[in-house]
Amino acid sequence: MSFSAVDVITTKRDGSALSDGQITWVLEAYQRGEVAEEQMSALLMAVFFRGMADRELRTWTDCMIASGETLNLGGLSRPSVDKHSTGGVGDKISLILAPLVAACGACVPQLSGRGLGHTGGTLDKLESIPGWRAALTNDEIRTQLESVGAVICAAGAGLAPIDRRLYALRDVTGTVESIPLISSSIMSKKIAEGTHALVLDVKVGRGAFIKTIERARELASTMVALGESHGVATVARLTAMDQPLGRAVGNALEVVESVDVLRGGGPSDVRDLTLALAREMLGLVGIDVDPAVKLDDGSAYDVYRSMIQAQGGDPDAVLTPAPIHDVITADTSGFVTVVDALGVGVAAWRLGAGRARKEDPVSAGAGVICLVREGDRVEVGEPLFELYADDDEHLARGREALRGAATIGDDVPVSIGILLERITK
Amino acid sequence: MSFSAVDVITTKRDGSALSDGQITWVLEAYQRGEVAEEQMSALLMAVFFRGMADRELRTWTDCMIASGETLNLGGLSRPSVDKHSTGGVGDKISLILAPLVAACGACVPQLSGRGLGHTGGTLDKLESIPGWRAALTNDEIRTQLESVGAVICAAGAGLAPIDRRLYALRDVTGTVESIPLISSSIMSKKIAEGTHALVLDVKVGRGAFIKTIERARELASTMVALGESHGVATVARLTAMDQPLGRAVGNALEVVESVDVLRGGGPSDVRDLTLALAREMLGLVGIDVDPAVKLDDGSAYDVYRSMIQAQGGDPDAVLTPAPIHDVITADTSGFVTVVDALGVGVAAWRLGAGRARKEDPVSAGAGVICLVREGDRVEVGEPLFELYADDDEHLARGREALRGAATIGDDVPVSIGILLERITK
Repeated sequence: MSFSAVDVITTKRDGSALSDGQITWVLEAYQRGEVAEEQMSALLMAVFFRGMADRELRTWTDCMIASGETLNLGGLSRPSVDKHSTGGVGDKISLILAPLVAACGACVPQLSGRGLGHTGGTLDKLESIPGWRAALTNDEIRTQLESVGAVICAAGAGLAPIDRRLYALRDVTGTVESIPLISSSIMSKKIAEGTHALVLDVKVGRGAFIKTIERARELASTMVALGESHGVATVARLTAMDQPLGRAVGNALEVVESVDVLRGGGPSDVRDLTLALAREMLGLVGIDVDPAVKLDDGSAYDVYRSMIQAQGGDPDAVLTPAPIHDVITADTSGFVTVVDALGVGVAAWRLGAGRARKEDPVSAGAGVICLVREGDRVEVGEPLFELYADDDEHLARGREALRGAATIGDDVPVSIGILLERITK
Repeated sequence: MSFSAVDVITTKRDGSALSDGQITWVLEAYQRGEVAEEQMSALLMAVFFRGMADRELRTWTDCMIASGETLNLGGLSRPSVDKHSTGGVGDKISLILAPLVAACGACVPQLSGRGLGHTGGTLDKLESIPGWRAALTNDEIRTQLESVGAVICAAGAGLAPIDRRLYALRDVTGTVESIPLISSSIMSKKIAEGTHALVLDVKVGRGAFIKTIERARELASTMVALGESHGVATVARLTAMDQPLGRAVGNALEVVESVDVLRGGGPSDVRDLTLALAREMLGLVGIDVDPAVKLDDGSAYDVYRSMIQAQGGDPDAVLTPAPIHDVITADTSGFVTVVDALGVGVAAWRLGAGRARKEDPVSAGAGVICLVREGDRVEVGEPLFELYADDDEHLARGREALRGAATIGDDVPVSIGILLERITK
C-alpha cells in the first residue's frame, strides 16, 4: 500500500490517529530518505500538539526497534534487568546499582549514553578510570554478562538507529519535549537491548527536564505501558531532582563517591535510592535477596572491580580532582533552603565536566562537591561548595554559574524525600 | 541581536507571541540558509496550531515583502486597483474584470499565477491565445498600464521571493491550510506589486479550498486588515463556489466564454459577479462609472483586445476545443440539485486542462462545458456535460472524474446566490 507524507502529516495534524500502515510507511520511508527531514519535523510538531494513542505509540516504537538489530539475552544463566534514569545532577546510581544487582544474582546489561548539557553521562564518568573502554561488541556484552553479571557500555549504533536521526532532528526543531516521542526514544533502545525487565527512574524537579509530578506521572505510565506491551516487565519510580544526588557532581568525583557507597559508606541519599531501585529490579526478576547486605559485605564492590577490569579499567587507580580549586562560602547564617540542582549541574558543565555538543571532550577531574544539603544549618563564612577545574577560565565560568545556587533562610525547609511515587502497569 | 531557531520555534509552540526581532531574524536567516528547512517547517506547523496575533502577522508579512523588490505604480495617470481570487472552478473573472475596470478609468495590474490541481490559472487560460506572452518586465508593466490600462501577466520572481520557498515547503509539509500563512502569502505579493487598492474574492464551498463561511470570514478579515495596515484600501467579497462559475471549465473554453461576456452576453452568473467586483474596485478608487454600460457598449472588449495585442496575442484567433469529444447525459429526469464544482474541476484537470506539478504542461483545448446549473429541470437522456480532450486516455479519465458530479432529484433546490458577504475594515 502506498501513502503520502502530506497525508500522514495532515491526518495527525487534524487530530486523527495514524494507522499502523501509515506509521510503518512514514518511518521506513524516512529511513530510506524518501520522506524528507522537513516533512518529518512537521510530523513531529503535529505529534507534539496532538499526542499519540496507545496503539499508535506501540506501532511507532515497534518500527523504531525494527529499524535496527536487537540483542538476544536469552540463554544466559541469570535473568536480565536494566535501569534507566531520565537524567539528573549527580546521578551516579548506575555505577553502584549494576554491580550491586549482579551481586544479588541477576545480570544487568546497562547500555548507556554520554552527558549533554547540565546532566552527566554514565560513560563519561567511567571514562575517568584509566584504561576503561565503553565500546563492546555484542559478543563481549554476552560474555561479560555471563562471567561478571554486569556491563555498563555504550549502546551500539545498531540498536534503534532511527532514534539517532529522530533525536538529532527533534533537537534542532523544538520537538524534544513530547511524551510519546521521549517514551519511544527511550523504550525502543531498552527493548532492542533485550532486557527481560526494566526499572525506570523518572526524575522530576528543578534539576530534571520534567518539572511537575503530573508530567512525570504521564511519562512514567506511558513508558511502563510500552515496556509491558513488548514483554518487558517494567516499573517506574518518580524521584525528586531538586537538589543534586549525593555530594559529588563531575566525572571522577562521582566515581569516587560511587566507590564509597559500594564500600558501605557514602551519602545516605545515594545509598537509599540505589537500594530502592535495586529492590525494584530484583523484585521484577523474582530474586529474594536483600541488596543492603551485598553492599555492606563487599560483594557488590567485588563485582564492580571485576566489571571495571573486564573492560580494561584499573579499579585501583587513584582518581584526582582537577588542579584548580576554589570554595564558595555562605554570606549569611541560617538554614539552607535550596541547593539548586540545575545551578550546580550547569556549574559542573561550565567547569568542564559536561559538554554542549556531543563531539566536545569532557574533563575527568572537573566538578563540584556540594558540602551542604537542604535543611543544613550553616554559619556565615562556612564553605558551601568546592569547585574543581583544569584552568582559571573554566573555574571563573563555574563560579559564575554557581551564584545563587544555594539559598539560606531563617526557617527549616520542609523535606519531601527523594522517593515520590511508584508507577506500575 | 542574536536569536536561535529553536527558541523561536518553542516560543510559538508554547503559545507566546513572537517578537518583531524574532520574526525578522528567523525569516532573514531562513533566506540566508542559516535556518534549515526542517526548522522552518516545524515553525510553520507551530503557527498552524497557535496562529499569529495581528502584530506578528503584520511583521511577518513586512519581512516577506522586504525579501524582494516592490513595484512602484506611483506617477501613473490613473489610480491602480487589483483583484485577487482565492481560486475556484471556472473562475475566468480576471479576464473580463481587468479590461472592464480599465475601461471605466482605473488601471489594473493583475499579476497572476498558474493553475495547480483542480483550480485553473489565469495565465494558463490566456496562453491558449496564439502569441500571447505572460512574462513582462517591470517597465513593460508600467508602460502597458499607462497605454492600455490593464495588464494580466506573471508575477515576477522578484516580488516577495521568500513566498516561493515558503509555499513549496508548506506544500510538502501539511502546513498549507493556515489562515495567517495563506494571508501573508497572498497579501505580501499584492502589497509588493504596489497596487493602491485591492478587492479580494474569497471563495467558499465544495469547489473552494475553504469550505465554511466562518473560515472564509476569518481569512477575509485577516487579509483586509493586512492590506489596510500596509496602506492598500482593501475590501473582500465572500462568494459561493459550490457549482462552477459559468459554463466553461478549461483554458481556451474559458477565454471564449470571457469574450462572450465582454461582448455583452455570456452566463449571467459570470456577468453578475464581474460587475459586483468591478463596482467594488471602482468604489475603492473613487470612480463613479457604471461598469454594466462599459460591458454593453463594447469599450471593455476594446480594452481586452488592446491588452491581448500589447502582449503579442491575436484577439481574433479562433480558439477551438480539443478534438476528442463526448457528452454525459442524465440517467433520470428531475431537478439538478447539485453540480459539484470540485468534481467538474477535477474532471477538467484529468481531461488535460490542469496540472499536478507546476512543471507540467496543460492542454489549451481540453475541458468541460456544463450544460446545466443547479435548479434546472432535465429529462432522462438530456446532455449534462460536454467533455473535450486531446486523446482517448484523457477523455476516459475525465469521464471517470465526472461520475456523480451532477445529482438529480425530485425537489427544486434552494439557491443561495453567489454573493454572500462583504468584509471591510
